[in-house]
Amino acid sequence: MSMAALLETNRKVLFPGLAGGWHYLDTAATAQKPQAVIDATVAAMGRDYATVHRGVYARSAEMTLAFEAARRKVAGFIGGREEEVVFTRGATEAINLVAQTWGQANLKAGDRILLSLLEHHSNIVPWQLLAERTGVAIDVCPLTSDGRIDLDAAEAMLTPAHRLVALAHVSNVLGSTLDASRAARLAHGVGAKLLLDGCQAVPRLAIDVAALDCDFYAFSAHKLYGPTGIGVLWARAEILADMPPWQGGGAMIDRVSFAGTTFAPPPPRFEAGTPAIVEAIGLGAAVDYVAGIGLGAIHAHETALVRTLRDELRRMNDITLFGPEDSAGIVSFALEGVHPHDLGTILDEEGVAIRAGHHCAQPLMEHLGVPATARASFGLYSDEDDVTALLRGIDRTRRIFG
Amino acid sequence: MSMAALLETNRKVLFPGLAGGWHYLDTAATAQKPQAVIDATVAAMGRDYATVHRGVYARSAEMTLAFEAARRKVAGFIGGREEEVVFTRGATEAINLVAQTWGQANLKAGDRILLSLLEHHSNIVPWQLLAERTGVAIDVCPLTSDGRIDLDAAEAMLTPAHRLVALAHVSNVLGSTLDASRAARLAHGVGAKLLLDGCQAVPRLAIDVAALDCDFYAFSAHKLYGPTGIGVLWARAEILADMPPWQGGGAMIDRVSFAGTTFAPPPPRFEAGTPAIVEAIGLGAAVDYVAGIGLGAIHAHETALVRTLRDELRRMNDITLFGPEDSAGIVSFALEGVHPHDLGTILDEEGVAIRAGHHCAQPLMEHLGVPATARASFGLYSDEDDVTALLRGIDRTRRIFG
Repeated sequence: MSMAALLETNRKVLFPGLAGGWHYLDTAATAQKPQAVIDATVAAMGRDYATVHRGVYARSAEMTLAFEAARRKVAGFIGGREEEVVFTRGATEAINLVAQTWGQANLKAGDRILLSLLEHHSNIVPWQLLAERTGVAIDVCPLTSDGRIDLDAAEAMLTPAHRLVALAHVSNVLGSTLDASRAARLAHGVGAKLLLDGCQAVPRLAIDVAALDCDFYAFSAHKLYGPTGIGVLWARAEILADMPPWQGGGAMIDRVSFAGTTFAPPPPRFEAGTPAIVEAIGLGAAVDYVAGIGLGAIHAHETALVRTLRDELRRMNDITLFGPEDSAGIVSFALEGVHPHDLGTILDEEGVAIRAGHHCAQPLMEHLGVPATARASFGLYSDEDDVTALLRGIDRTRRIFG
Repeated sequence: MSMAALLETNRKVLFPGLAGGWHYLDTAATAQKPQAVIDATVAAMGRDYATVHRGVYARSAEMTLAFEAARRKVAGFIGGREEEVVFTRGATEAINLVAQTWGQANLKAGDRILLSLLEHHSNIVPWQLLAERTGVAIDVCPLTSDGRIDLDAAEAMLTPAHRLVALAHVSNVLGSTLDASRAARLAHGVGAKLLLDGCQAVPRLAIDVAALDCDFYAFSAHKLYGPTGIGVLWARAEILADMPPWQGGGAMIDRVSFAGTTFAPPPPRFEAGTPAIVEAIGLGAAVDYVAGIGLGAIHAHETALVRTLRDELRRMNDITLFGPEDSAGIVSFALEGVHPHDLGTILDEEGVAIRAGHHCAQPLMEHLGVPATARASFGLYSDEDDVTALLRGIDRTRRIFG
């Protein structure tokens, strides 16, 4: 379906979670699912259900083909190769996997990791846990005044001691987009690897990991209009090949004996146990759905909504807007004299769902000097009515508190 | 629904995966899903969908209640407390979590772990990986002649150096059931903890972790008629409380700062990132479904099918039966002169699905002196027709090869 056709349809019918005139502006937390993804899930759980990689019967062989086809779809969607796509529980697990295998094997005391001030906790805490175990040091890249990761500062900070640069491709709070290609050049310039947290980028920008020249790319399915319980780690084949196993179990082995066990090549090496079969197939359906509309169209659509909302909010004296003007689908703001939670609660009464809180980015909140922000985030199904409802709700809140 | 009512209904209608007269005898690999679990999944992915633990809007609060209700259902189902239930990707991750947190923090060179010869790879490899890192030694308990874990041998092997005993509650190959209470007494007698791999037990036996007196209990939802992508680690509250975090990210933290991060209490401490929300709710529905029928009835039903099948197979001169007479829902066997894969392939043509292979238990295969076995496994939806179809298929195979 084209974006134009989607815009002409009643989008809320195609997304059962949006029924009832709900104005859902929390897509950066998790995206509502198109009927196509739900249908794929129902078929995979029912009519087509079987285990993968093991059965000698036809249904299991077919399920294996469907499961591996999903991997191929994901690889194609981000410009990678299928043997470079590891299915994880989510982006969080993908980053922990890198920290606990590649990081544990390659980093030691004296080495340094560069993060940024706007990272999600999932791209901070895994490195802190690794630092505790290995003695590696963590540096924090500051932000520009409009809330981008300051790559000039990064350039000045990077040294040959840096082995890894790990940055959000799009900030989950500010919507600011990283110049990922420059980040790759800077990282590689000192011999470091680049990991991108792509959670907010993959649903909003066309991704080509080869063009970005990154080394690791992590994202979650549930933010890409797909199922919960599954995510993706993409990593360069030669890096994956050298990574030791992390979790042991079925499927990740070559041969098990009590005298010594040998391991399968990646990706199975990192997929111990029965995989999230149904979820992988659901993710494949989500990729088909999103690719069918096209990231170009989705990005243009969200950008227009962001512009409308920011233009309106900018004219209000009691609103502080965070993040850059071209924030990708995500607008964080504060209403003077009203705690974001109170704003969120009153908006909820109006049928408008926003997020209010620290957005799992407490260091950024500290930097912004606020305990929390209100955040409206768009998806491909968002529309002008959602913006209007949000503005009406802000107005009502102002009158209640004013 | 009672088992009697279920037996009177067309079970294949209630399980969409069984439509079309399919004789599915691979439930030990993964169970087909009742319509009730699929319906719960569809509602959670659509009408009710939102994130948990974070939203300020009503839908998210309701989803959080549903998610935590699922945890409570799981806890009640196995006789534990809800704060002792950690959601994992599956049983494999649950065991790896114990190895990499409790094991890493508590075991050191000189300590010993007792496993058994019939363990699934998921209860072998995590301990081998831990042994590599810590220098802990692994001992292997032998089996009795009828394929049970030999607890007399375990008693003789255990020493005060043993810190952990990790055993399958029900063997995934032989169906043999562990005397778990005795295993707990033996383990605790030397000051070791007891971990039970409950993957095959939870769908077949009423579990009460308090009565079993174990310390860790791991199982997967997908073998309990629930979704893929989720499993459970139950552990005693006081043990969980002392376990360091494993994966870092959102939800598992108390407060994040680059100066130092503090962690949430369990279970959130071990649930980094957006959880498998839909899958948890689906697991809750599966627990409701199974509890509604009752494990007593399910066990009696599967036991009768096992008896019928074993009685028939025992009368055939060219069949070798593995495992004890009272194997729980699982029958492994060999047909003389026919590789299990060939048997499985011919059975598939007859609409009968069995498993043929090493069943992720290569050390057990070596012990049995076979590269693979044929395995028929029952579920609550299995019936005499499935047994008849299997026997007819074996007969046809014999004629083809004879």
